[in-house]
Amino acid sequence: MAKRNVIVAQSGGPSPVINASLQGVIEACVEYPEHFNNIYAAWHGAEGILKEELIDLGSQDIEEIRLLKSTPSAGAIGTCRYKLKEEQREDFERIMEVFRAHDIGYFFYIGGNDSMDTAQKVSDLAKQEGMELTVVGIPKTIDNDVGDQEFRLLDHTPGYGSAARYWSYLVQNLAEENRAMSGSEPVCVIQTMGRTSGFIPAAARLADPKREIPLQIYFAEAEHTLESLADSVNEQLKSDGHCLLVVSEGFDVGGVGELHDDFGHIEYSSSRTTVAQQIVNYLNDNRLKAYGLATAQVPGAIQRCVSLYASCVDIDEAYLVARHAVGIALKDGSGWMATILRKSTESYEVQYDKVPLQKVANSERHLPRNWISKNGVDVTDEFIRYALPLIGNGNPDVKIINGLQRFARFNKKFIDRLTPEYQPVCMRV
Amino acid sequence: MAKRNVIVAQSGGPSPVINASLQGVIEACVEYPEHFNNIYAAWHGAEGILKEELIDLGSQDIEEIRLLKSTPSAGAIGTCRYKLKEEQREDFERIMEVFRAHDIGYFFYIGGNDSMDTAQKVSDLAKQEGMELTVVGIPKTIDNDVGDQEFRLLDHTPGYGSAARYWSYLVQNLAEENRAMSGSEPVCVIQTMGRTSGFIPAAARLADPKREIPLQIYFAEAEHTLESLADSVNEQLKSDGHCLLVVSEGFDVGGVGELHDDFGHIEYSSSRTTVAQQIVNYLNDNRLKAYGLATAQVPGAIQRCVSLYASCVDIDEAYLVARHAVGIALKDGSGWMATILRKSTESYEVQYDKVPLQKVANSERHLPRNWISKNGVDVTDEFIRYALPLIGNGNPDVKIINGLQRFARFNKKFIDRLTPEYQPVCMRV
Repeated sequence: MAKRNVIVAQSGGPSPVINASLQGVIEACVEYPEHFNNIYAAWHGAEGILKEELIDLGSQDIEEIRLLKSTPSAGAIGTCRYKLKEEQREDFERIMEVFRAHDIGYFFYIGGNDSMDTAQKVSDLAKQEGMELTVVGIPKTIDNDVGDQEFRLLDHTPGYGSAARYWSYLVQNLAEENRAMSGSEPVCVIQTMGRTSGFIPAAARLADPKREIPLQIYFAEAEHTLESLADSVNEQLKSDGHCLLVVSEGFDVGGVGELHDDFGHIEYSSSRTTVAQQIVNYLNDNRLKAYGLATAQVPGAIQRCVSLYASCVDIDEAYLVARHAVGIALKDGSGWMATILRKSTESYEVQYDKVPLQKVANSERHLPRNWISKNGVDVTDEFIRYALPLIGNGNPDVKIINGLQRFARFNKKFIDRLTPEYQPVCMRV
Repeated sequence: MAKRNVIVAQSGGPSPVINASLQGVIEACVEYPEHFNNIYAAWHGAEGILKEELIDLGSQDIEEIRLLKSTPSAGAIGTCRYKLKEEQREDFERIMEVFRAHDIGYFFYIGGNDSMDTAQKVSDLAKQEGMELTVVGIPKTIDNDVGDQEFRLLDHTPGYGSAARYWSYLVQNLAEENRAMSGSEPVCVIQTMGRTSGFIPAAARLADPKREIPLQIYFAEAEHTLESLADSVNEQLKSDGHCLLVVSEGFDVGGVGELHDDFGHIEYSSSRTTVAQQIVNYLNDNRLKAYGLATAQVPGAIQRCVSLYASCVDIDEAYLVARHAVGIALKDGSGWMATILRKSTESYEVQYDKVPLQKVANSERHLPRNWISKNGVDVTDEFIRYALPLIGNGNPDVKIINGLQRFARFNKKFIDRLTPEYQPVCMRV
């Protein structure tokens, strides 16, 4: 088979390790010059393909590529929330046009469940049209919501381990704060990402596997009201004098999240108020007079773009699963997503595998109901055994120069345009 | 002079390095057994003295004391927001009673401007009553608002360097996020602490001394309206496509912060809404339709309790200024606050000195107006030269065991009570 060109793209919300996967794709492709010719990045995911905004990764400084592993978020090549819906045939045909024009034989798409749906549609369409195109997905999401409820298709998504480390460290830190300030601010409310999937808030428990901290976790999956929450908080205050509340952004107290993105998801970070704010207001107005104040912490996107709190295990896996995806492309062809499976639960060890894209496209995994404790505000030890190895056991190697972090920087010059200008369907006024 | 006992206490909001000062006091006192007998910590600051809740620090494991330098916030001995007002004579007399009962000859108070006021009042009262008591203050606040506008009394407060490092790293990280997500979430609003003093939001600029990031800083000290802010944001979007807004919690857009603490300060973290939320709502409702969404990040107390983002320079200085305070107590007597002065601006170098408590009690330093740039949304290079050395050039040494941070833990058993029970004035129902 002749040498063909490669496009790699990132999609959806960033993670601290999505760039490690980008580095994995680039470095693996470079090792097979007999198969891969030029390696292009689509600038801001699918939008970059549609607009024919492609960057030549082969011409980037090799030192910058090596820095990707410690560069958080997706600022190097950009990402997007552009949804390619079934009915947007024009967009799909446009992708084929750009792929044909640039002799693209391989397309690696790093993203979550929505992105795997797009990848599958592109793969199918190429087959229908008789194009030789190999599409392989690379999983990414801090939410850990891709895959099946039994963890047979995918043990965890790259990105989750770092979000879990952020939250386990943060809850350790905020537990110090909460204990320190128990006299005046005894209730510390912290809002996590994770939409309606509870893996992120669950990670708060990793901070304290022995359950020594007065910590309550409010999942979107568990049923509580503001009133029952206030009752539980007051009980905790009676016994401990202070209390940490970790609350999922998807915990429903009503009136939050009226803004939706192109995928139909609620845009929690753009909502008119937050669940943390509503809880703080309710507690301060009605229920805490005798103890002091409740305060709100809403780190928002910070939890998906931190560098120092990234998990070393997560960085390595994000890198290796992407390299594995390149192997799948060469050995197994189109229509797969690379996966991470757990070989053993005794001593943490993983192996890399694959799953048909259709099995994960638009999947939505939730925190298993039996991993939420009976009182509804904690997780079981089974969750701790599952998640604790993912946070690793040390700090990542972030390059610091003159006191500041040194991140990867690419030359953003687009390669020459070979097709007419195109306005993506969702961007037309 | 006979050996006397020591009380050390922490007051006000925590910082990532306040425990380093605690460690400095303990280790310096231990070196002078001819002067210092038992070293007690007051449990939760002034409240612990009033309630006679004292912990014996001398009986703590030496390894735990060594861990204080890398233990953020003030959970080891607690802090408080208890205000000792002039008219609360009963409280002041109670402090004297407890000091007499436990033969306290030295009182080290780690805190901000309010705490220095308390320290001075205690020192004065002891003199009036003919008690031999040496009171020395140790500066602490992430806000950097203690001292004079000319930086002659105090160059900076321990705690500020770590808050500045948190914000400079965070803005570096969020700049990656903002660039990555420019297509759908082009405006990233981040709210800092700092009340009405702009040193913390100013630190955002340290992330980008060369001014390459589309960053705007909104100080409490500068005059903007929601409308002028939206105009500036739209201009930035036109030129860069995305924009980071760092906003002081004290930036006045009206309707925020109706809750006040005992000191009369606004309790921003307990407010019914936040300035970041109000900005996001205004932009999303009125002004950003063509570009995408604005999102809010409000880390709140996180910025004062992080460990990995603490500045090594700050940790060392917080430790050394506390040791210096012990030296002042022995050499100069009562009524001083230990200080940090900058010897040279060429190569960063400090020296430790002292200032009378009355000169800093209830002082309130603001970000100098001439360090805010003419456009009102940036700082000058003079600020960068002042603040950049404070963030240091590397990561702090945080002990990690089984994946988690290992913080100092004290035995909390109070020493035997020698006085009748007492209810602090502000805690009476």
